Amino acid sequence: MIDPNDAVLLLIDHQSGLFQLVRDIELPVLRSNVTALAKISRLAKIPTFTTASVPDGPNGPLIPEIHQHNPEAVYIPRTGQINAWDNPAWVDAIEKTGRKTLLIAGTLTSVCMAFPTLSALAAGYKVFTIIDASGNWSQMATDLTLARVVQAGAMPIDTFAVISELMNTWNRPDAMEFAAVAFDHIIPPYRALMESYDKAQSVQRDGRETKLDRQMAPV
Amino acid sequence: MIDPNDAVLLLIDHQSGLFQLVRDIELPVLRSNVTALAKISRLAKIPTFTTASVPDGPNGPLIPEIHQHNPEAVYIPRTGQINAWDNPAWVDAIEKTGRKTLLIAGTLTSVCMAFPTLSALAAGYKVFTIIDASGNWSQMATDLTLARVVQAGAMPIDTFAVISELMNTWNRPDAMEFAAVAFDHIIPPYRALMESYDKAQSVQRDGRETKLDRQMAPV
Amino acid sequence: MIDPNDAVLLLIDHQSGLFQLVRDIELPVLRSNVTALAKISRLAKIPTFTTASVPDGPNGPLIPEIHQHNPEAVYIPRTGQINAWDNPAWVDAIEKTGRKTLLIAGTLTSVCMAFPTLSALAAGYKVFTIIDASGNWSQMATDLTLARVVQAGAMPIDTFAVISELMNTWNRPDAMEFAAVAFDHIIPPYRALMESYDKAQSVQRDGRETKLDRQMAPV
Amino acid sequence: MIDPNDAVLLLIDHQSGLFQLVRDIELPVLRSNVTALAKISRLAKIPTFTTASVPDGPNGPLIPEIHQHNPEAVYIPRTGQINAWDNPAWVDAIEKTGRKTLLIAGTLTSVCMAFPTLSALAAGYKVFTIIDASGNWSQMATDLTLARVVQAGAMPIDTFAVISELMNTWNRPDAMEFAAVAFDHIIPPYRALMESYDKAQSVQRDGRETKLDRQMAPV
Amino acid sequence: MIDPNDAVLLLIDHQSGLFQLVRDIELPVLRSNVTALAKISRLAKIPTFTTASVPDGPNGPLIPEIHQHNPEAVYIPRTGQINAWDNPAWVDAIEKTGRKTLLIAGTLTSVCMAFPTLSALAAGYKVFTIIDASGNWSQMATDLTLARVVQAGAMPIDTFAVISELMNTWNRPDAMEFAAVAFDHIIPPYRALMESYDKAQSVQRDGRETKLDRQMAPV
Amino acid sequence: MIDPNDAVLLLIDHQSGLFQLVRDIELPVLRSNVTALAKISRLAKIPTFTTASVPDGPNGPLIPEIHQHNPEAVYIPRTGQINAWDNPAWVDAIEKTGRKTLLIAGTLTSVCMAFPTLSALAAGYKVFTIIDASGNWSQMATDLTLARVVQAGAMPIDTFAVISELMNTWNRPDAMEFAAVAFDHIIPPYRALMESYDKAQSVQRDGRETKLDRQMAPV
Amino acid sequence: MIDPNDAVLLLIDHQSGLFQLVRDIELPVLRSNVTALAKISRLAKIPTFTTASVPDGPNGPLIPEIHQHNPEAVYIPRTGQINAWDNPAWVDAIEKTGRKTLLIAGTLTSVCMAFPTLSALAAGYKVFTIIDASGNWSQMATDLTLARVVQAGAMPIDTFAVISELMNTWNRPDAMEFAAVAFDHIIPPYRALMESYDKAQSVQRDGRETKLDRQMAPV
Amino acid sequence: MIDPNDAVLLLIDHQSGLFQLVRDIELPVLRSNVTALAKISRLAKIPTFTTASVPDGPNGPLIPEIHQHNPEAVYIPRTGQINAWDNPAWVDAIEKTGRKTLLIAGTLTSVCMAFPTLSALAAGYKVFTIIDASGNWSQMATDLTLARVVQAGAMPIDTFAVISELMNTWNRPDAMEFAAVAFDHIIPPYRALMESYDKAQSVQRDGRETKLDRQMAPV
Repeated sequence: MIDPNDAVLLLIDHQSGLFQLVRDIELPVLRSNVTALAKISRLAKIPTFTTASVPDGPNGPLIPEIHQHNPEAVYIPRTGQINAWDNPAWVDAIEKTGRKTLLIAGTLTSVCMAFPTLSALAAGYKVFTIIDASGNWSQMATDLTLARVVQAGAMPIDTFAVISELMNTWNRPDAMEFAAVAFDHIIPPYRALMESYDKAQSVQRDGRETKLDRQMAPV
Repeated sequence: MIDPNDAVLLLIDHQSGLFQLVRDIELPVLRSNVTALAKISRLAKIPTFTTASVPDGPNGPLIPEIHQHNPEAVYIPRTGQINAWDNPAWVDAIEKTGRKTLLIAGTLTSVCMAFPTLSALAAGYKVFTIIDASGNWSQMATDLTLARVVQAGAMPIDTFAVISELMNTWNRPDAMEFAAVAFDHIIPPYRALMESYDKAQSVQRDGRETKLDRQMAPV
Repeated sequence: MIDPNDAVLLLIDHQSGLFQLVRDIELPVLRSNVTALAKISRLAKIPTFTTASVPDGPNGPLIPEIHQHNPEAVYIPRTGQINAWDNPAWVDAIEKTGRKTLLIAGTLTSVCMAFPTLSALAAGYKVFTIIDASGNWSQMATDLTLARVVQAGAMPIDTFAVISELMNTWNRPDAMEFAAVAFDHIIPPYRALMESYDKAQSVQRDGRETKLDRQMAPV
Repeated sequence: MIDPNDAVLLLIDHQSGLFQLVRDIELPVLRSNVTALAKISRLAKIPTFTTASVPDGPNGPLIPEIHQHNPEAVYIPRTGQINAWDNPAWVDAIEKTGRKTLLIAGTLTSVCMAFPTLSALAAGYKVFTIIDASGNWSQMATDLTLARVVQAGAMPIDTFAVISELMNTWNRPDAMEFAAVAFDHIIPPYRALMESYDKAQSVQRDGRETKLDRQMAPV
Repeated sequence: MIDPNDAVLLLIDHQSGLFQLVRDIELPVLRSNVTALAKISRLAKIPTFTTASVPDGPNGPLIPEIHQHNPEAVYIPRTGQINAWDNPAWVDAIEKTGRKTLLIAGTLTSVCMAFPTLSALAAGYKVFTIIDASGNWSQMATDLTLARVVQAGAMPIDTFAVISELMNTWNRPDAMEFAAVAFDHIIPPYRALMESYDKAQSVQRDGRETKLDRQMAPV
Repeated sequence: MIDPNDAVLLLIDHQSGLFQLVRDIELPVLRSNVTALAKISRLAKIPTFTTASVPDGPNGPLIPEIHQHNPEAVYIPRTGQINAWDNPAWVDAIEKTGRKTLLIAGTLTSVCMAFPTLSALAAGYKVFTIIDASGNWSQMATDLTLARVVQAGAMPIDTFAVISELMNTWNRPDAMEFAAVAFDHIIPPYRALMESYDKAQSVQRDGRETKLDRQMAPV
Repeated sequence: MIDPNDAVLLLIDHQSGLFQLVRDIELPVLRSNVTALAKISRLAKIPTFTTASVPDGPNGPLIPEIHQHNPEAVYIPRTGQINAWDNPAWVDAIEKTGRKTLLIAGTLTSVCMAFPTLSALAAGYKVFTIIDASGNWSQMATDLTLARVVQAGAMPIDTFAVISELMNTWNRPDAMEFAAVAFDHIIPPYRALMESYDKAQSVQRDGRETKLDRQMAPV
Repeated sequence: MIDPNDAVLLLIDHQSGLFQLVRDIELPVLRSNVTALAKISRLAKIPTFTTASVPDGPNGPLIPEIHQHNPEAVYIPRTGQINAWDNPAWVDAIEKTGRKTLLIAGTLTSVCMAFPTLSALAAGYKVFTIIDASGNWSQMATDLTLARVVQAGAMPIDTFAVISELMNTWNRPDAMEFAAVAFDHIIPPYRALMESYDKAQSVQRDGRETKLDRQMAPV
């Protein structure tokens, strides 16, 4: 399980150009999952670092919503390294947090997420790989990467599980803020649940709206 | 092709409970398509009518974004009829517009969309059935319904084609308003295209951000 | 649209052995759809005929729930004909009803449903083919059969649409009996909708059950 | 293999609202699998505990069939904890059984099933995770969760394997009671097998029903 | 419906090389369906013609089982024409039969089956296109071809429906010969049905084989 | 069937940005199919016109290989019209060819291909819609568009069928040029067929390469 | 890797009734894979044992081809045990071979294959689980079973790999007998390869068959 | 991670005949991935060995592009062994490189890739299995093989990850040569990214091409 006080969130190479190569997850879902992580790490006060791979070229810029929804996140440019862990400034920033649990997502999964994961494991970190907040160029590549990082000791996890572990309980003052991230970004069908719930209560409280000649019993 | 000056948009039974029965399209996609139609009919000044089937019960209320994004839309309650066309107030409202082209979407497709479509065709209307702004309980049911309404003379169409037919040209003052509906609701990957486009232009205009020891040629 | 007063339901060769050859629909779904038709034709007072193809052999007996749920249904044995319409007793029984609209389902779809459909169309009947209450040996065979019977003039329809057309309105004394057939047999997720609805009303009426140290606002 | 005398069944958060978020398994299948576990744990005299996550809100109530089919099951409310294992009353109830093998199913899989699984493994329990009696919000999330809990030492298992391990042999007085649970809930095609079997025997015993002009040889 | 006395079977370009390009149906299934047609046309005494497209090159030779199982079939070589109908010898052979109903299968579907179909329709023939005894290079190409030939007036049909229409009734001396073709080639699961059927009858006739300490009731 | 002497090829809006929105066909396949059409229309001396929709913006430029492989193709810019047929210069160019058969492909299928198709049909042209040389934003949108244009009278066709109809026979001097287009662009598995064919002949001609202690018989 | 001299093949509960419950693999493929194993174990002189679960009831008899193609295989009846390993006669037979490597296939996979696998591993055997010669009631159940048996130490393997490991080299007198099993049962497309190969050689040796007016160069 | 100075690339049995048996990956994709490996190993100066299984028979010859794009690669014939590792010349060649990290791809995956992998692991090598540059006869066989080789200690990897690990950084003189391999062979959609990028820059630099009556704002 994730300890929020020991965790760092790493969002690697979520760039508009690379996103258009993604074939293992729908683009709006990927984008929404990444946004949710940016919001939730801010709520949970988890240090967050981003980086991008040659963003001047066709790889494109970092998607803007990460820093828009998490102004405390720090962008660390790099000088061409494919594996972000090969950038001393990146490793240094992580070390300075004094934390040893890394939550890693990256696009493309088999490169930008996998390489820093393997390096961090080798460096003694505990790593959670958030594979549905990463995007990859083929489903087969994702299957292989999942097997590879699990074999190396990383713990695979999905975005909703990250949010739930960090939220921990509904019995806290900011529970609704955590829940709103999940409902807005991860589980859109939940919105219909809430609308149905409110309507059922208003019918109980305020009476029926439908005018039927013959009144049906409550269904 | 749709003539905007002869068209009426009918959005039938898009209710939070019924949405949870949908199995032929992802719920966020369906919801987004319906919202796009509500916006676009307002832009194109097309009369829009909504209705709901026993919304006091588990079928749930109409999803709120339709009337929120199209305040001119008119909600016409009914008194238990499954086929909205069996409600005289519904037919009357349509007739009063003096228009003869109906754009119909409804949930569930094989009932709430199909029945009024068949009735309207029998009454002499020209009908476009917007099947990806409708939701159904099984893929097989949708396949059968498509065959049924085409056989009866309805013209099947997707939400993006509706928007494009109503927009007609990029060479109009409100072109960007029409386009924004498509980009925000129908084709989310378009957003990444725009971000990459802007970045490429800013690199050309303002120079590269990436600091490489050896400068790469433009890819 | 189906006129209940002109309709006859024909359930052809729904036999336990043939069911095990079905590959275009899940077996429990097929079985449930057929049962729903048996119940609904009784509710709507529609004459119903069944038959079976060499039930003494591996094709197996008719599934029992049809006659169990619709005791008025009449079983008409045949003497080896593959096309039930080649059996004079079958055609005779249908003619004696004086009705001209046939609702046909059969297993296997491309034979037991398709052949009587083509014969009935040739004989001047109006035919609705209920393809999701039929089962076939391959998906491709079903796609071809759908194209074939539509080309010949049959109207394709799904089981839920049949129920809804026969029910017609929620504003009738036996509405809940019709609805129960759909909820029990066709759309099982509806049950969860009803449970959530009842719970939401009971919370409004009787108060919350969850004991939280800090009371959350209604979600 | 499961030792029935050391086992406890934990059914966590099988609620009508959460069920509507499930996208990795068909809802009727999930519901049927959970019901089967409730029945089988009663037959096998395995202590069974249930709980629910904020059932007053849109998550909805526990599905009723669990306690209906297993009146000895004990419901343990909690006060907002997402991980049921964080509820002292829950852990206490399990400890009091003196048993060390836990059979865990929960909705959503990656949270309600996975978190207690990880906690129980850390507390020294042997855990079987019944993943097809759990439901999750995406297939990818289930794939990741399977890898995560297996890595942590849990043994994955399907509902039918649980029933078969507990039944153990056909050579016991209550064999048919165990088998009936599997046939009614887990493997519906088995019903057609039994019907064909009985018919074949009755033809052998009582003669053929089909009247053919020329008698066919047994197929 | 097919009249066996007016029908001709045309098997076009079922060659070992072309078969390796097929992507819309499993190769063993395609091969088995074609073999079934060769056998059944012989049983039903339907004239059968085959041809091949440049079989000396990588397209490869005709698969041998057609002529092996139907020695009366006539092979008509052609001199490079892609559309077999452009070969005067081919059209001549068909005309000499005096029959006007053509059953056509060919690999690749969108060329070798579709072109002669369109030509034959233009020449006034009634055409059944047996699309699951044809193979194509992509599923999308098959979908388009189905729409194209139906639009032109061809009747789509699957192999099992062809067999059943030609067999017509179980009440004929050679019924088992027709049935054997279907069971051996088209519906392999039927074999398990027959085995179960025979076993059930032998248990009834000869007693149980299983030695249980406690005798179970028949399931 | 297509008459090469009456045909015009229209390639509409095959632009790099729009290509990234395509979800109903793999991008390399789409790109390859379009290239094949450009080559084949040149070989068959069919007039070819291209156009692009606001290529200065994120829609991006026309893919370069069309004009690269078909220098005779004519690019006709337009001034914002979504439906290329609304551009008088476009219609004028087509009319000047004096031909009445149009082969149309476009990206996105439901707009850029469908709208000119409907307009051309209304203007009395015979239209073949090459749907696998078009790309669309969803599979459902393509299914609906196929039904729509077929209903309006267009003939659907796949790229390989176009090539085959234009080639007509292997018995022409340039047969290998036509075939090469199909093998290089449409049916890549054909390359392996040719390699195997050549090897088999060289073994026959030049002897075996494999040194086995015991010589196997030819397989 | 498998040592043929230390191996025993166990084929458990491949019965006609159980086969009809299989949903994770096509029935003809499963049947063909099992037959291949029966043949290959005979060729490789590997002791082979079969058994069946209550074959008198709807589970049905063992499929006949196992013993038909491997007369040396020994059938060991059991008295109701679900886990074949609970039958002392079964374990005894295996022990008497003195071999310690077990190749196990069974239907249903998650029960009849998995339970003896777990028992054999616990008893110190080395186990290869041939999962594509086993059949299961759902794909999810197979995924879970694969994870379970791998975690317990079993080595998963497919039928073709078993054949290849036992064959070992093409350079042995009986190589063609091994290969024939693979080609006939496991990889049916191989047959087309051989036909194309033979044709290519005969064209080289005996000349071309196609009469073209203009002779094409070899493709 | 792969150390380029310790690595050897082994490409086993990529033959035109075997390629036609592949069913777990599209043939053009497989062929392209293998070609990419051949190019990249040359760029990275990694010793490369190839071999083929009885290439004189229907298995066919090695695909030519491997040696065409990597003239330094060495072909090592074998004398019938199925497992390439059983060929002393093969093992000897690898040992002489003095390197201990093997990158292995082979067709069919479950035999030609898996067997040498298991042998190399047993011989103490570190093995990366490039499963998407291998092809297999069924998806299930690939799933089983992935589990088998991971259990034995091999590290699974996809082709793009191999290229990226060997390239290591964009900040090297030959970065564009590495990148070109990925763009040309592995990720074809990248080409559209580059075209859009160049166009966006040229619009910024050289002005707009589209003539609109009303100038749109930049999108």
